Amino acid sequence: MSKLPNISTSIFTVMSKMAAEYNAINLSQGFPNFPVDERLTDIIAKLAKENVHQYTPMSGYAPLLSKIATLVNNSYRRTVHPETELLVTAGATQAIFTTITALVKNNDDVIILDPSYDCYEAPVLLCNANPVRVALNDDYTPNWEIIEKACSAKTKMIIINNPHNPTGKILTESDFEALEILLEKYPDIVLLSDEVYEYITFEEKHISAHTREKLLNRSVMVSSFGKSFHVTGWKVGYLVAPEYLIEEIKKVHQFLVFSVNSISQIAISEYLDIVSIAEIGKLYQEKRDYFRQLLKNSRFELMPCEGTYFQVASYAAISNENDVDFCKRLIIEHGVAAIPISTFYADGKDLKLIRFCFAKDNATLEEAAKRLCVI
Amino acid sequence: MSKLPNISTSIFTVMSKMAAEYNAINLSQGFPNFPVDERLTDIIAKLAKENVHQYTPMSGYAPLLSKIATLVNNSYRRTVHPETELLVTAGATQAIFTTITALVKNNDDVIILDPSYDCYEAPVLLCNANPVRVALNDDYTPNWEIIEKACSAKTKMIIINNPHNPTGKILTESDFEALEILLEKYPDIVLLSDEVYEYITFEEKHISAHTREKLLNRSVMVSSFGKSFHVTGWKVGYLVAPEYLIEEIKKVHQFLVFSVNSISQIAISEYLDIVSIAEIGKLYQEKRDYFRQLLKNSRFELMPCEGTYFQVASYAAISNENDVDFCKRLIIEHGVAAIPISTFYADGKDLKLIRFCFAKDNATLEEAAKRLCVI
Ligand SMILES: CSCCC(=O)C(=O)O
Ligand SMILES: CSCCC(=O)C(=O)O
Repeated sequence: MSKLPNISTSIFTVMSKMAAEYNAINLSQGFPNFPVDERLTDIIAKLAKENVHQYTPMSGYAPLLSKIATLVNNSYRRTVHPETELLVTAGATQAIFTTITALVKNNDDVIILDPSYDCYEAPVLLCNANPVRVALNDDYTPNWEIIEKACSAKTKMIIINNPHNPTGKILTESDFEALEILLEKYPDIVLLSDEVYEYITFEEKHISAHTREKLLNRSVMVSSFGKSFHVTGWKVGYLVAPEYLIEEIKKVHQFLVFSVNSISQIAISEYLDIVSIAEIGKLYQEKRDYFRQLLKNSRFELMPCEGTYFQVASYAAISNENDVDFCKRLIIEHGVAAIPISTFYADGKDLKLIRFCFAKDNATLEEAAKRLCVI
Repeated sequence: MSKLPNISTSIFTVMSKMAAEYNAINLSQGFPNFPVDERLTDIIAKLAKENVHQYTPMSGYAPLLSKIATLVNNSYRRTVHPETELLVTAGATQAIFTTITALVKNNDDVIILDPSYDCYEAPVLLCNANPVRVALNDDYTPNWEIIEKACSAKTKMIIINNPHNPTGKILTESDFEALEILLEKYPDIVLLSDEVYEYITFEEKHISAHTREKLLNRSVMVSSFGKSFHVTGWKVGYLVAPEYLIEEIKKVHQFLVFSVNSISQIAISEYLDIVSIAEIGKLYQEKRDYFRQLLKNSRFELMPCEGTYFQVASYAAISNENDVDFCKRLIIEHGVAAIPISTFYADGKDLKLIRFCFAKDNATLEEAAKRLCVI
C-alpha cells in the first residue's frame, strides 16, 4: 500500500513531456527560455577551474550566507544572522519539504489555501498530518474569517504563497493585519511563507513576511535563486527562520541532503555582488504587458496578474471542455502547452481557466500568441 | 518538542569546522583534496555557455539516465531500464532519505547494522518507525544469525552499506547467500543497499547487489558520482530500483526536491563517455597503500581496509582517552583531524578507534603522517 495513494506525476512533468512529444511551445512548467545573464555564466566558466567541487558546509557556503543576509537587509531592512537564521537548500521545494518534515507532527493540522501550488500537500501527508484546505475568495484574496474558523489547537502551520502561484495575487497590508490578529490567538502556529517570486511583482509593492515584525519570530520564509536569476535547473534556494525553528529544520536537512551543489552556490554568491535585483521585476513586467497585449485580440479572457511569471486566462468563450482536456487539445491541435488550473485545487474544481508562463523570449511569446489568437 | 530530540550536528560538520578553526589537516569528513579531472572541469566550463540552466526532468536528465544504465550494464551485466528503474538524486543522502520516507511506515522496523554511517537513522525516526540496531561481528562482518533473530513481520527494510563506511569492509559471496536465505523467509522486506563506494575496492572484488538475481526485485541500490568522480560538492547520486518501488520513491522525490542540479548532471553525462571507472579503484588503492606505509612507524595500529577511502586505526597504544576527546586533542595539539568511530555506534561504543580519510594528495598524506608518527 502506497503512503501517497492519491498522488500521481506532477502536472508540470505531464505537460512538459507532452509539449516535447508534440513539439509544442511550452508555456506550461514555469522556467525561462532566454539566455542566462552572461556575467553569471562567465562566473561558472571561471569557477569550473577553481577549487569549488567539494562539499560546502551543511548550512550553505559561508560567503553565500552572508550575501543572502545582505540581500534581505537591502530588500527589507531586516537583519538576519547568517549562521543561525539561514539555510541554503536544493531549491525552494526542498526548503518546503524539509520545513514541514521538521516541524509538523502526527495528526497536526496544516492550513493550505485552495488553489495552491502542488508541493505542500505531500510532505504534510507523509508526516501523518492533515492538510486542511481553505478556499480563497473568488478574486483569490484570502478569506481570513474562514481561515480562522479552520484553525484550532491542532493547527501547527499555515502556508501562504506570496506572490501566489498560479494566480499571481499578492497579499496586502490588510491581509497581513488580519493574519497577525489571527496568529496572536494561536501562539503555536508557524507561518510558512513561500516567496519564491518575491522579486517578480509589478504595480503593487510586494509585502514580504520579512517586513512584519509580529511574524518574524514564528515564520519560515522560503525563496529561490532559480526564479530570481533565471536558473531553475540549478536548484539553489534558501530559507530564513528564527533559531529555534531552523535548528529543527537543519536536523532534518543534514540527513535529507546534507549540502547543496557547490559550484552553483559559489557562482550565485559572486553574482550577488554585481546583479541588480530590481531589474528582474522590470523585465517580467515588460514580458507580462507584452504577452497580454499580444493576446488582446484572442478569445481568451485575461485575469489580473500582480506578480509571478504566470498569466491565468479563461477559455470559457472558446470551449466547454474541462480544463485538462482543453490543455491537451491546445497542445495537440494548436501547439501551445499550458497548465490547467483545476490541478491546483484539492477537489479539481474546473473554472475553465488555464495558466501560461510568460518567462519566454519575445519571439516565443509572439509565436504562441499567434497560435492562441486563431482559436 | 523536537521530532528528533537525540539528533545533533553531524560529526562530519563538527570535525571539519574544528579542523578549519585550528588550521589542522582535515582527514575527517570524506572528500578528496586533489584537483578534479581536467576533462570534467573542461566540460563544465564549456557547458556554462550552453542551454543547461533550466529544470531537467523529475527523474533526471534523459541522456544521463541512459548512460547510468550503460554503466550498470558494463560493471555488472545488469539491464536496467532508464525510464522506469532509475532516479537521479541530489546525492546519495537524498536517495536514502527519499527511499526510506517513501517505503517505511508508522511502527515498521528497519534493520541498521552497528556501526553505521550516520544518515540512516533520522529518516526512519521521522517515519515514526523503529531503527533496530544489530551489531556487526568484531571483525565487522555481519552476523546473519543475529540479524535474522531481529527480523519479524514488522520488519520493512534492511539497510546494508557495501563497501562499509567507516570500516572499509566489503560483503562476501557467503554474506549474500545468507542474506538471500534470510530474505526468502520475509517476502516483504526491502533491501536498501548503499554502495556509494562501489568503485573503490581493492584486493577483494566488490559484490554488488546488482549481481544478485534473487535480490533485484526487492532492492534499492544507491550510488554517488560525488565519490566516484571526486566531486562531493556536486551532490549528484542515483538509485536503481524495480518499478513498483521506484514509483513510490518518485512520488516523494517530486515533492522533496523535484529535480537535481542541471549542469552537474549534464557534465557527468558527457564525462561518462570518456572516463574509465576502473582507474578510480586503482588510484585509491595506491593512496591507501602509501598512507599505510607512511604510518608504519607510528604507534597507531592499522585495521584492514578492503574498500572506501577511509583507514580505521587504533590509538590504544597511545592513549586511554575516549575517542572523541582523542580526536579533539589530535586536532588541537597535533594538527590532524579524524573521525571518532564511537559516533558510528548507536550506543557510542568507544573502542579507541578513529577514522582517517586518505583521499588526499600525497603531500597532504605525508605531512599528516609526519605529525601522526611523533605522537
Ligand atoms: C518544479 S516544476 C514547476 C515549476 C513551477 O514553479 C511552476 O510551473 O509552477
Ligand atoms: C556528508 S559529509 C560526510 C562525508 C562522508 O561520506 C564521510 O565522511 O563518511
